[in-house]
Amino acid sequence: MVNLEVVLIELFVLILLAMIASMICKRFEVPVIVGVVLVGIAISNITINGQSLYSLLQLSQEENSAIFQVFAELGVIFLLFIVGLETPLSELRKVGKVAAMVAVLGVVIPFIGGLVLMLILQYDVLESLFIASALVATSVGITAYVLKDMGIIETIEAKAILGAAVIDDVLGLIILSMVSGIAEGSGASLLDIAAVAILAVAFVLMVMFVTYLIPKSRSKMKESGRGKGFHKHITPLPFALIVCFGISALASFLSLAAIIGAFLAGMLFAEFKDIWPAEEKLEPIKEFLVPFFFLQIGFMVNLGALTGGGVLLIAVLLTLVAIVTKWGGAWLGARSMGRGSANIVAMGMIPRGEVGIIVASIGLMTGVLTDSLYAMVIFMALATTIVAPFLIRWAVKRRGEWKGAFKGAPNKFKEL
Amino acid sequence: MVNLEVVLIELFVLILLAMIASMICKRFEVPVIVGVVLVGIAISNITINGQSLYSLLQLSQEENSAIFQVFAELGVIFLLFIVGLETPLSELRKVGKVAAMVAVLGVVIPFIGGLVLMLILQYDVLESLFIASALVATSVGITAYVLKDMGIIETIEAKAILGAAVIDDVLGLIILSMVSGIAEGSGASLLDIAAVAILAVAFVLMVMFVTYLIPKSRSKMKESGRGKGFHKHITPLPFALIVCFGISALASFLSLAAIIGAFLAGMLFAEFKDIWPAEEKLEPIKEFLVPFFFLQIGFMVNLGALTGGGVLLIAVLLTLVAIVTKWGGAWLGARSMGRGSANIVAMGMIPRGEVGIIVASIGLMTGVLTDSLYAMVIFMALATTIVAPFLIRWAVKRRGEWKGAFKGAPNKFKEL
Repeated sequence: MVNLEVVLIELFVLILLAMIASMICKRFEVPVIVGVVLVGIAISNITINGQSLYSLLQLSQEENSAIFQVFAELGVIFLLFIVGLETPLSELRKVGKVAAMVAVLGVVIPFIGGLVLMLILQYDVLESLFIASALVATSVGITAYVLKDMGIIETIEAKAILGAAVIDDVLGLIILSMVSGIAEGSGASLLDIAAVAILAVAFVLMVMFVTYLIPKSRSKMKESGRGKGFHKHITPLPFALIVCFGISALASFLSLAAIIGAFLAGMLFAEFKDIWPAEEKLEPIKEFLVPFFFLQIGFMVNLGALTGGGVLLIAVLLTLVAIVTKWGGAWLGARSMGRGSANIVAMGMIPRGEVGIIVASIGLMTGVLTDSLYAMVIFMALATTIVAPFLIRWAVKRRGEWKGAFKGAPNKFKEL
Repeated sequence: MVNLEVVLIELFVLILLAMIASMICKRFEVPVIVGVVLVGIAISNITINGQSLYSLLQLSQEENSAIFQVFAELGVIFLLFIVGLETPLSELRKVGKVAAMVAVLGVVIPFIGGLVLMLILQYDVLESLFIASALVATSVGITAYVLKDMGIIETIEAKAILGAAVIDDVLGLIILSMVSGIAEGSGASLLDIAAVAILAVAFVLMVMFVTYLIPKSRSKMKESGRGKGFHKHITPLPFALIVCFGISALASFLSLAAIIGAFLAGMLFAEFKDIWPAEEKLEPIKEFLVPFFFLQIGFMVNLGALTGGGVLLIAVLLTLVAIVTKWGGAWLGARSMGRGSANIVAMGMIPRGEVGIIVASIGLMTGVLTDSLYAMVIFMALATTIVAPFLIRWAVKRRGEWKGAFKGAPNKFKEL
């Protein structure tokens, strides 16, 4: 049996600290998430009598750690599902070409950049390949949060980022399975890798195709009068949850990111908005859970792991390469949108988040990455995630100054 | 690291089955919770190739089990917090006398009834005392859910039940600490027990006193113009969560039920409804989590444990005594409200739920209860909880026929 009293105390302390941090951030006009991530870093790195606050709060205890990991993951899943609900497939298709360019260039250039850097630093080829794969990933959670928070999730730039993130995830999966194949030396033939890739692409296309078919089949059903009133027997919230968790689990099963599944699920469910309105109910659940996602990012920062000879220096170098190459690649891909918009899209693609961390863990488990290389990748994944809100907001502001404010959200910037 | 893919699959399966069960229940006009509890029982008792669905879904895996226990517990905590939000202290005070009578008689009579039954059945005194203590507990979670679902949580009967549940919890704690003291033989002197009791009473009275003071101090602050506008810097949802989890944890720390703390916290927070409206945001979070509470009740039912010689018979006997004595005691306490109302209140006090289960676990851990006695108490706690929705709805209907429907909810009965 889990000790529920301890969990209640943990919830009390974490939400209290997150709220105080948010209030301070608002006062000094710093993005709220940064404050919450810093609370997470403080909890896992401040020690009292040799014990971190993290373990004093019993958060290191296996069951409690599992609980807050699940809260964190569900937080981003709800976030991306809601973003999907607000993204009509038709609008995503409009940015299809640009998104593909952003994704491809935003994958190729960081991969080459990472590979070259590591080879220059005299790491061996396999290690370098793995690190390069970790630079490929994009985790769109933080970006989606920032754009939604600024009230500009419905702009063309946001759509391009979301579309690119979906394609990016598929490309990243292909690269990762190739590199893992090389690492394991044996089994993974080109055929296996092709199978992984085809399954992932088929999954994404199938969900999109179903989403595309729904309005047509619904209008046909309406004409023929079949299925009339049946939907009233279904309660919106549980049904939305079933669709969301089902498709997220399937995406995860196919080695894609669960949040990409949640985003696609949201787009699909959006086609039923009129008969099953669930958005208003999902919003508060997200509001409850999403701070745990930002806290979790902070929990994973181990400042101690970066003290050994030169590790921090290389980690910072790696982070700079990660930022510059992703920005450059994505910017080139999006340049047809105009400089200001391309800048926003490119900044939005920078965070590596949990996707980068997953790649690093696979590297550690297969024995390719040493502990210090692992720590560097984690540093890069987290650092790119933490700086992203600043960069995105800066890019939005800059473009606002160039072209005048966005439609529909002209005075949002000051409030943030 | 917890396996998030598995958790997503579990969420998908559990919510899907719960939704199907709900739809079937609605079709046949059976309370929805009964269907969800049955799903839980089925999952933990149906076996395929010797493995229960529960373990096939990896729900028996320690971390996953912890996650769903927390979901379940948070579900009732949110439920009782919201019920507290809808219960002004002033109205609870109106029913104070009746509630006290209901609580006292609803504690004394089941205790004597349980003790006599077990002594007749030739159990030894200590065992009998423990079983009798388990009969004392009231868990108001299911009752609150049913009354809220029927739209009659604001009636005088609901207030009497809630008030009695608070007092009941304190009385139950006193009895449990006395019996545990006897069981441990040594330490627990009368002084220790008095200390436990005084702390619990002081806690309840203090929270109520603060709740009572708030409106006065707020109107004073308004007059003097101090603190004006400060509340705008605080976001309602996190603040409500902090108050809820803080007071629930404190209640749990003082050996009271966490849900009693949540109820008191809700009453306190209700005084700030105008400046921090959180109810609309809490409602969907509850809707998401509360089904896991009902599933959890089902998970704990081990049909296999009741097969041994005569165990089931005694368990059924115990359950009947639990129902009749609690109903009788509470009815006597509430009879000044009129027969119909007293009947509703008495039915509402019947479920023992997790409070009864906690008593049983203490008995098992201290070595007083054997496995089969433990199984009997669990059976009683669950059976009283599962029959409660039927009994409560029957009592409400019956009183509706006697006196005409309740004010404000005249046509609610048919819908359920």
